[in-house]
Amino acid sequence: MIIPADALYGIATARAMDNYDISGVKVRDYPEFIRAFAHVKRACATANGRLGLLPGDVVDAIVAACDELIQSDRHHAHFAVDMVQGGAGTSTNMCANEIIANLAAIHLGEPVGDYSRVHPNDHVNMCQSTNDAYPSAAKLAVVFKHVAVTHALEDLIASLRKKAIEFEHVVKMGRTQLQDAVPMTLGQEFRSFASSLAADLTFMQRNVDQLYELNLGGTAIGTKICADASFAEASVAALSEQTRLPLRSPEDFIEASSSTSSFLLFSNILRRVAVKVSKICNDLRLLSSGPRCGFNEINLPAAAPGSSIMPGKINPVIPEVMNQVCFQVIGTDHTIASASEAAQLQLNVFEPIIIYNLLNNMNLMERGLNTLRTKCIDGITANPERCKELVDNSIGIVTALLPLLGYKKATAVAKEALETGRPVAEIASRFADPREVAEMLRPEAMTHPRRLVDVNTETLARHSRASA
Amino acid sequence: MIIPADALYGIATARAMDNYDISGVKVRDYPEFIRAFAHVKRACATANGRLGLLPGDVVDAIVAACDELIQSDRHHAHFAVDMVQGGAGTSTNMCANEIIANLAAIHLGEPVGDYSRVHPNDHVNMCQSTNDAYPSAAKLAVVFKHVAVTHALEDLIASLRKKAIEFEHVVKMGRTQLQDAVPMTLGQEFRSFASSLAADLTFMQRNVDQLYELNLGGTAIGTKICADASFAEASVAALSEQTRLPLRSPEDFIEASSSTSSFLLFSNILRRVAVKVSKICNDLRLLSSGPRCGFNEINLPAAAPGSSIMPGKINPVIPEVMNQVCFQVIGTDHTIASASEAAQLQLNVFEPIIIYNLLNNMNLMERGLNTLRTKCIDGITANPERCKELVDNSIGIVTALLPLLGYKKATAVAKEALETGRPVAEIASRFADPREVAEMLRPEAMTHPRRLVDVNTETLARHSRASA
Amino acid sequence: MIIPADALYGIATARAMDNYDISGVKVRDYPEFIRAFAHVKRACATANGRLGLLPGDVVDAIVAACDELIQSDRHHAHFAVDMVQGGAGTSTNMCANEIIANLAAIHLGEPVGDYSRVHPNDHVNMCQSTNDAYPSAAKLAVVFKHVAVTHALEDLIASLRKKAIEFEHVVKMGRTQLQDAVPMTLGQEFRSFASSLAADLTFMQRNVDQLYELNLGGTAIGTKICADASFAEASVAALSEQTRLPLRSPEDFIEASSSTSSFLLFSNILRRVAVKVSKICNDLRLLSSGPRCGFNEINLPAAAPGSSIMPGKINPVIPEVMNQVCFQVIGTDHTIASASEAAQLQLNVFEPIIIYNLLNNMNLMERGLNTLRTKCIDGITANPERCKELVDNSIGIVTALLPLLGYKKATAVAKEALETGRPVAEIASRFADPREVAEMLRPEAMTHPRRLVDVNTETLARHSRASA
Amino acid sequence: MIIPADALYGIATARAMDNYDISGVKVRDYPEFIRAFAHVKRACATANGRLGLLPGDVVDAIVAACDELIQSDRHHAHFAVDMVQGGAGTSTNMCANEIIANLAAIHLGEPVGDYSRVHPNDHVNMCQSTNDAYPSAAKLAVVFKHVAVTHALEDLIASLRKKAIEFEHVVKMGRTQLQDAVPMTLGQEFRSFASSLAADLTFMQRNVDQLYELNLGGTAIGTKICADASFAEASVAALSEQTRLPLRSPEDFIEASSSTSSFLLFSNILRRVAVKVSKICNDLRLLSSGPRCGFNEINLPAAAPGSSIMPGKINPVIPEVMNQVCFQVIGTDHTIASASEAAQLQLNVFEPIIIYNLLNNMNLMERGLNTLRTKCIDGITANPERCKELVDNSIGIVTALLPLLGYKKATAVAKEALETGRPVAEIASRFADPREVAEMLRPEAMTHPRRLVDVNTETLARHSRASA
Repeated sequence: MIIPADALYGIATARAMDNYDISGVKVRDYPEFIRAFAHVKRACATANGRLGLLPGDVVDAIVAACDELIQSDRHHAHFAVDMVQGGAGTSTNMCANEIIANLAAIHLGEPVGDYSRVHPNDHVNMCQSTNDAYPSAAKLAVVFKHVAVTHALEDLIASLRKKAIEFEHVVKMGRTQLQDAVPMTLGQEFRSFASSLAADLTFMQRNVDQLYELNLGGTAIGTKICADASFAEASVAALSEQTRLPLRSPEDFIEASSSTSSFLLFSNILRRVAVKVSKICNDLRLLSSGPRCGFNEINLPAAAPGSSIMPGKINPVIPEVMNQVCFQVIGTDHTIASASEAAQLQLNVFEPIIIYNLLNNMNLMERGLNTLRTKCIDGITANPERCKELVDNSIGIVTALLPLLGYKKATAVAKEALETGRPVAEIASRFADPREVAEMLRPEAMTHPRRLVDVNTETLARHSRASA
Repeated sequence: MIIPADALYGIATARAMDNYDISGVKVRDYPEFIRAFAHVKRACATANGRLGLLPGDVVDAIVAACDELIQSDRHHAHFAVDMVQGGAGTSTNMCANEIIANLAAIHLGEPVGDYSRVHPNDHVNMCQSTNDAYPSAAKLAVVFKHVAVTHALEDLIASLRKKAIEFEHVVKMGRTQLQDAVPMTLGQEFRSFASSLAADLTFMQRNVDQLYELNLGGTAIGTKICADASFAEASVAALSEQTRLPLRSPEDFIEASSSTSSFLLFSNILRRVAVKVSKICNDLRLLSSGPRCGFNEINLPAAAPGSSIMPGKINPVIPEVMNQVCFQVIGTDHTIASASEAAQLQLNVFEPIIIYNLLNNMNLMERGLNTLRTKCIDGITANPERCKELVDNSIGIVTALLPLLGYKKATAVAKEALETGRPVAEIASRFADPREVAEMLRPEAMTHPRRLVDVNTETLARHSRASA
Repeated sequence: MIIPADALYGIATARAMDNYDISGVKVRDYPEFIRAFAHVKRACATANGRLGLLPGDVVDAIVAACDELIQSDRHHAHFAVDMVQGGAGTSTNMCANEIIANLAAIHLGEPVGDYSRVHPNDHVNMCQSTNDAYPSAAKLAVVFKHVAVTHALEDLIASLRKKAIEFEHVVKMGRTQLQDAVPMTLGQEFRSFASSLAADLTFMQRNVDQLYELNLGGTAIGTKICADASFAEASVAALSEQTRLPLRSPEDFIEASSSTSSFLLFSNILRRVAVKVSKICNDLRLLSSGPRCGFNEINLPAAAPGSSIMPGKINPVIPEVMNQVCFQVIGTDHTIASASEAAQLQLNVFEPIIIYNLLNNMNLMERGLNTLRTKCIDGITANPERCKELVDNSIGIVTALLPLLGYKKATAVAKEALETGRPVAEIASRFADPREVAEMLRPEAMTHPRRLVDVNTETLARHSRASA
Repeated sequence: MIIPADALYGIATARAMDNYDISGVKVRDYPEFIRAFAHVKRACATANGRLGLLPGDVVDAIVAACDELIQSDRHHAHFAVDMVQGGAGTSTNMCANEIIANLAAIHLGEPVGDYSRVHPNDHVNMCQSTNDAYPSAAKLAVVFKHVAVTHALEDLIASLRKKAIEFEHVVKMGRTQLQDAVPMTLGQEFRSFASSLAADLTFMQRNVDQLYELNLGGTAIGTKICADASFAEASVAALSEQTRLPLRSPEDFIEASSSTSSFLLFSNILRRVAVKVSKICNDLRLLSSGPRCGFNEINLPAAAPGSSIMPGKINPVIPEVMNQVCFQVIGTDHTIASASEAAQLQLNVFEPIIIYNLLNNMNLMERGLNTLRTKCIDGITANPERCKELVDNSIGIVTALLPLLGYKKATAVAKEALETGRPVAEIASRFADPREVAEMLRPEAMTHPRRLVDVNTETLARHSRASA
């Protein structure tokens, strides 16, 4: 096993690079993960120093090495192991141990590869196992990365709300089961998109704290073997100081050692976002269908000439790419669930595929949501005349007359309107006071609730009798 | 453990009923499974008789018992164990063994519960294990049941083809990415539905033979322990005679013992059908959207008043229920895959959940497809004027002029048409011979291929220069 | 369409029974759903009475009808529509409307079928649409049903904790990656099972409030058309009074109309439970593997004779059936997610398949967890001698010497132990003080954390130098 | 939009690069896809030349350009668009059109960017749409790539078969439900692994022909608009010549335009392989569990020091990484199915995510299977003494005596053996002729079938009476 002269990693990493030529995706492709690892190793060295287990100069050298990885990506390229690996992340942990030991050696004036003062296992990995260091770093990486996803969601929600205000007075037909239902405003429709995502944003923020629980110090299986009794507390405290996050230890370290529950939760949350964003994209594509043979209520901005063969065709390419991001997130959530279920006894050895997909999905979501916002939502315009025309021609508005006519007569009106093509108002006026009909068919009246008893108590009484 | 006096089952079944109160779905809810089991037990008894391992009167009694279960459902109610059970189907196998032993006892003039002449384990289960008898019966049940699914598919395809002929001359706009594309006929659209399912039907029929391979005679783990060396061959031969199916033994009985591969294949095939049927239902719902604010190219028959509040609303309820059947098939295919992956060493102990979902999905598919055909497809009507109007107003037809104008000029025509609302033909005639334009925009010309060089070689040459 | 003389349902239900012969599973198979529906209809009538929209006698008659359905299952059989249906639940809603209208008629002394005083649409469904009444009832049904699931989880956790105490002093080898790792107690292992489920129980309880948000009063698409402006508030208030649940209205009714987010959340929660329970069952099956050729650390109670061919074989049938329940929950969560994603515009028409699977999965979970507890967990016994023997023979205990020997020397000890078969303690004593070695290899010392610095500061200093 | 001076792509590609910053994975990461695209474009130019639609020098220039892309990866870096994109692959198609047009320009002595003689749309894309060119290229890419997957499978199967022969005489206990069952040989176990994959290999090879059907020439929606009537036939003929593959046109081009059925089929096939490979890896990890506290029947080669904390621990890291590849393939098959189901009307706009995952999964499978073979399977050794000891101590061998003792007596023997720890043979000899018992317990007799009647007809008769 030959290690390149300029490599900061060591023999364990080299073996891993040889063993795992699997996905082509490397740890270095996820800088948050490297930073998170450096934070964990830094906190452990600090804690070991405080507990009197590591001399001050070794602590300082490790801290300096970690800070280099945290503050810059200069050495990140050395994290060259495949994200998808066996051994429950041992190779990534050893790669971090080796790179940090070598950077510490440099700080101490020793040559790279000289582990005499800072040994990857005995010092950088002191009081730790892959089984606690790796998932702890991964949780931290998810916490770091979730900030960007959160921002992307927040920005998208803000954009949708701006559109909701812009389209506040565009009255249009609501549709259920793809059939004409009753009127609403386009503003209400866009506000509903925003509301739908806002609920998930809140849920995500409310639950990120589940990732704050780190089994650091549990070592191999949660019995804390090889770690000082105070190490878990001390290392998590140091890590909280460094990251300013309210991190904590689990009550049951044994359970925490094999649990990927918080990763699965976060993947589920992303999947729920994907389910909703996909629905919104589907709606945008429906609402902009046309221009002549579809709904054509809104226009998406033209991101590109649509077709290699059909001149002038403008396609909803941005919602389409977002839909695909959603399918990816939904499918790989399945991967994450399968890998979670496959934990055995004291460990889940399949954490690498879980962490890879989760971090990758967060990247996809961040980029996808930002693309959706800037290249689509922000540029959407409405076709208010088209919307109005559809409402005016529709039969579904007969529903607004239900309190006036009762279900049976209203059905007859609808049937006649469909068959004759005559307006609902005209036909309904044969059965009720035309002024009342007109009042109830005002768009504003149809899109916002009012007090029914105020309208006409007598009418209601009449109708109550009439429907008999 | 008390067994009711009139029960045909025995102690093993009673224990299983006590152990597994899980899904509420019983073996008796799947008569094909019972018949398949009876066939297997009958063939085994016949084979054992031929091999000299069972005396003739015992064989005859078992055969008579099995025939009762095959020919009538009179005793099916005694198959009262839950479809979802532990033990890899042992309870279902023992239930069959007990019921058959008791029916055989009756035939021999013995009281129910007297196993002295026909013992559930020693005689009915002779040379078998649950691990070969259960999956063999299940495969046979899937083969039996697939006939109904096949018929339902065939009938649906025939209905769709009839509609394709009926709508042969209804010219309409094709849509890609929900945007107006180029013209086609509604007949072509319905034919494509039929073609899509016909491909899967062929695939299903071509692959049902994978279910003909039965590990019967492999006994516990495929080493054929406790079975005569000729039993596998003899029992499969007897079973082939009975069922007139070209059943066969596997080359590697060990492998076959733990494999659920053919179930998974069949589930995959059903899932592919579901994926396509769901797409068709989505299209039907889109094409019938409206009546005023949607595509409104076709009318689905009104299966029911659509809404409890919106009078006169007719909803696409039949495609909707079919979509849901498809979601169920797709989701539970996941269950089947997970259960398949969880085989361990010499057995897949999770066969019961696989078989339950597969048989249930086949029921759902059969009923769903028949419902879709009779209550929806057969009654679909077209709105040819609406379809024509959409084509006439569309811009996408400019694509037909591409060979005449080249991509750049055609794009300009499309743009002008969209902005001014003037017809494509009119604008295009400024750039090319109006007669050629008119010829190329004939619906027939647009929906069916022709020889381009014949049209106008010179035009093409011109265009080739012009596009520079 | 003929309605049986003794039917309490009406024409809409009869049509639905004819339209949807799909799954064979009926609304009546889910009594919680019927009770929830009756609660919703009762609250709406109460609210309409309070708002002056319904006369007192009609309110009273509807309330009495609903109470009959809530308090007894006498009339439940009339809820004969298929759970899987098109129309977004319209058939179930109309079935409830019709049955309640008829029961109300009886209360008012009118004949069944006489809707002159209480009309299914105009009065029972007053101010409602299927689109708000159906999901509101479904949420309530999930809330009702979740109590049983919660109890089943609580009881299982309590059982596991009892076993944790019972096995507190059984020292055994922990395993990671199925390889011998370091010692722990069997009590710790069972406690970890309990902890793992306790986390999910808490999560479930913390999030059930997401189901308390009901779009009741939003009517067709959330604009509250046909409903009094105060109806949403009034009906939810009445429903809260009846059920003593802190129910609430959404901020955005439009969004709430098409959202199935809380169902999906609850399905996700169940899936996470399933993922963990499946892992626990896998572990139980591993730990009890044997009796001679496996781990054999614990004994599961014999639920049934294990095999139809292998005499005396005792199989882990109860964990096996629970695994299968988990596969079902995991697979159908996929169905629920697909159906959720397929919402379009102002409605998710696929709510029926979502609700069916969710309620069914809760049934499966309740029964499965109770079965697992009573027929398996409660009867588990340990094999402490076997556990001890495995620890004594193991090499993994060398890990405990890491603070004493450093990684390099410890590896050498392990290698020698594996090759020679000689005990770790003996070999290690060549490199360190035998008393220290013995102290560090005490089971109690290996399974519980201690202060490393106390042990031997000097040793550590030595080791720090030695590892150079 | 600025295009770098040295870029071979054009404005459409540049816009796509700006629009789609999504996955970070580029078309250039899949050289098979580029080669496939070049083949398609080459065949189309050839066909257009033969049909008289393109002048000879243009054909020659396009052919030369395509050959450059087929024969070397020198220009592949210019395929810089994201694999995940909207527009159903338009950006990838346009990228290919532009790069080929520019390479053709160079061949014709024109400057890059001068499309006067070879235009991306009018000539390179002549008679094509993205909707036929893109999926045709993708199918070809899958066909190209499947060769490597097939080889990896074949090699793995050969390795497993070699091990089967090597372990032919290692008698061991078979296990069902993780419980000791009956004896077999380790060779039989490894042969079953090989058989299981061989079945899937055959299935893959038998079905690759489904990818030979290309909708090339169907253009936008399958009506062949803008294409010569003979173009489909001519282009597929040219492509068949080039690739020496028996490619063909579909019967129904409309159907073929929106179908992703063959991609889904191939993904399903890969998923089935993954399901089986995962099971094999699970088994390898079980069989090698230990070394002291597990099954320990086989030894996996040590790929790496196993643990960062546990010295000397050797972990099954290669099966573990393969398991994870399988989870990825299984999860993203879900993505592919969801995307397939989401086709609408005349197109499936989600082909890019389907193709990306399918090609990526094939890469993962190829690398994973080769890694599994070379780094694990080839180096596996058996522990024959351990295997023998387990058989000798087991109780499950009592099953072999079933034909001699009947189920009831055999159960009693098993029970006594378990309780007393005395050997099965000894106890059984009290109930039957010790020589017969010994004969039936010979390992060879237990692992291979024999003629039961030969053994002892009389015994059987006796037993038949005895079991009464």
